[in-house]
Amino acid sequence: MATSMDVHRGMVGITADQLMEAHRADLAIEKEEGVHFQKAWADPASGTVYCLSTGPSADAVQRIHQRTGHAADEIHEVPLTV
Amino acid sequence: MATSMDVHRGMVGITADQLMEAHRADLAIEKEEGVHFQKAWADPASGTVYCLSTGPSADAVQRIHQRTGHAADEIHEVPLTV
Repeated sequence: MATSMDVHRGMVGITADQLMEAHRADLAIEKEEGVHFQKAWADPASGTVYCLSTGPSADAVQRIHQRTGHAADEIHEVPLTV
Repeated sequence: MATSMDVHRGMVGITADQLMEAHRADLAIEKEEGVHFQKAWADPASGTVYCLSTGPSADAVQRIHQRTGHAADEIHEVPLTV
């Protein structure tokens, strides 16, 4: 099981409701790829969203994001944590 | 109190020990800026490190990272969380 962090850009002005809605869309289908979206953090000023997940691979995470209409601009598996 | 996420690049091959050492260096002086470094995630393959912190501002977080020799390449306050 891999932990991944992904980054979405261009989300300037994102609201708490929009972040929640996007997260819920991911949660609704995440099991189809064996993924779990743990947490997301957003900066509406720069339009940056960071998303932490676990799953078989970063590719599996990206497939869910693609299907829910918000593919990540960058995604990396992060095997080291402190 | 603001939550910030920052990104360090160019850390290809970073080890668990190096990540821990960098984190400890930040922790050792974080109080001088009223900052707390909560967690970091690293991808040695791409050399990317993500770092989550709280403090009075992203600038305060960056000042600690600068003093410990690893300024962030990107840092954003993330007022929205889900």
